[in-house]
Amino acid sequence: MFVFLNNQLIEAEKATLHISDLAIQRGYGIFDFFRVREDVLLYVEDHLDRFIQSAQFMHLSCPYSKDQLHSILQELQKKNNLPNSSMRMILTGGYSPDAYQPVAPNLIIMQNPLAFQDNHVPKSLSIITREYVRDIPEAKTINYTMGIWLQPKLAEQKADDVLYHINGTVSEFPRCNFFIVTKDNVIMTPEKNVLKGVTRKKVLACASSYYKVVEGPVTITDILNAKEAFLTSSTKRIQAITKINGQAIGHGEPGSVTTELLKSLVMLEQSFVKQK
Amino acid sequence: MFVFLNNQLIEAEKATLHISDLAIQRGYGIFDFFRVREDVLLYVEDHLDRFIQSAQFMHLSCPYSKDQLHSILQELQKKNNLPNSSMRMILTGGYSPDAYQPVAPNLIIMQNPLAFQDNHVPKSLSIITREYVRDIPEAKTINYTMGIWLQPKLAEQKADDVLYHINGTVSEFPRCNFFIVTKDNVIMTPEKNVLKGVTRKKVLACASSYYKVVEGPVTITDILNAKEAFLTSSTKRIQAITKINGQAIGHGEPGSVTTELLKSLVMLEQSFVKQK
Repeated sequence: MFVFLNNQLIEAEKATLHISDLAIQRGYGIFDFFRVREDVLLYVEDHLDRFIQSAQFMHLSCPYSKDQLHSILQELQKKNNLPNSSMRMILTGGYSPDAYQPVAPNLIIMQNPLAFQDNHVPKSLSIITREYVRDIPEAKTINYTMGIWLQPKLAEQKADDVLYHINGTVSEFPRCNFFIVTKDNVIMTPEKNVLKGVTRKKVLACASSYYKVVEGPVTITDILNAKEAFLTSSTKRIQAITKINGQAIGHGEPGSVTTELLKSLVMLEQSFVKQK
Repeated sequence: MFVFLNNQLIEAEKATLHISDLAIQRGYGIFDFFRVREDVLLYVEDHLDRFIQSAQFMHLSCPYSKDQLHSILQELQKKNNLPNSSMRMILTGGYSPDAYQPVAPNLIIMQNPLAFQDNHVPKSLSIITREYVRDIPEAKTINYTMGIWLQPKLAEQKADDVLYHINGTVSEFPRCNFFIVTKDNVIMTPEKNVLKGVTRKKVLACASSYYKVVEGPVTITDILNAKEAFLTSSTKRIQAITKINGQAIGHGEPGSVTTELLKSLVMLEQSFVKQK
């Protein structure tokens, strides 16, 4: 397996950063993550746009243009020859002499095998909530201090994931976006304090052909009154949320809208791959 | 220069972590930092206690006991022979196979030369405020996403540092604790949402011999009504804060209590070194 590090492809096991890097010293960096399906980099344009936006927002100067990054990704894909896999691009604060000021970033691009099924039945999840907002929600930073720290609490409460909220207005999961389907068949998703996920964007596009779609405030009360709830992410696609803090949402099982949207998303992905 | 990495002393330039480390992948880790003066590790017991507490709080299992860590620090000090320096201990989430679950941590101990003067006149700082609370304020995590991200804003506003607050109740700076001296000569410092700094602890001890000392809520209004304000940290000791969001605090210059406490802190440090 090969990794792209700064300006070259190297063997993955030899890919290291000096301890002075600002990710190690101060947890400072941004990243993006996407799937490769049948040798096609899924929605790579969206991911590259967001990677570049995150870098700019966090005052990190990415050493490559979008086109150059795209070429590097394709080169890595060719070299590793992993038709179904994941790619993770990380841009750190670099080797900072004072361990505080970002300097020339280090760029890492890793690839790992990732098998994926075209499931049409959404998984059913039980979630808890936690008052929290990510430090810089607009950017996909590497800071997962809270999400990782909460893992033992999830295990303890037998919950699958944790939904962040501020004063009862929810935002996102550590690694996924959140949606509800109201009793009037309106699809709602939080707009503030969230990372604008690529799968979120695709779901909004799919849904808007058939439903009224609203990006705006969603409260815990809205969730308890909703017909269905689900999350979205690149690796989870769509998963139904059927329980929140021990209370059932809707009928307590994956609903028809969630199932239908999952089917649309899988079809979209299949047609994206065919067109390439 | 040598660095201690996991279980050995190695040359600093060769000290690297594999890119799968959870600090690089997810900014997950804890650290501590202290000064070495005339070959004495300043308040090392306090720093080791806090390092171990931070690790426990963040579910990271430190591979060494307090005594073992102390021996390693002394070995490193002997090897590098830097009588006046700084030491930084970092414990990361380790080489996580799924890039999310902490595993066996990586331990880094770095040392750098650090000249230090026994100044008796506090520096005078101008600060701004920002609504924010650190993710896990009880632990000294490596997450400085917000503090680093705000650096350009500090430069733009010609401010020296930024004081975090929630709804006007202040907590801490990204790397320092905060104190005020009220018009009645009461020394107050926030207790909630702060890292309990070692210098903070020493200053509280020094101050309590001569003043009433209160650990509790401090608001921005309290600061504007205060006689003096100052910050504390291992590398800054005590620095006066004479301006907040463009408004003068007290007479707008370092006050007598701040100056006196700085002198006490320097004396305490000198006597700590002499006793070793």
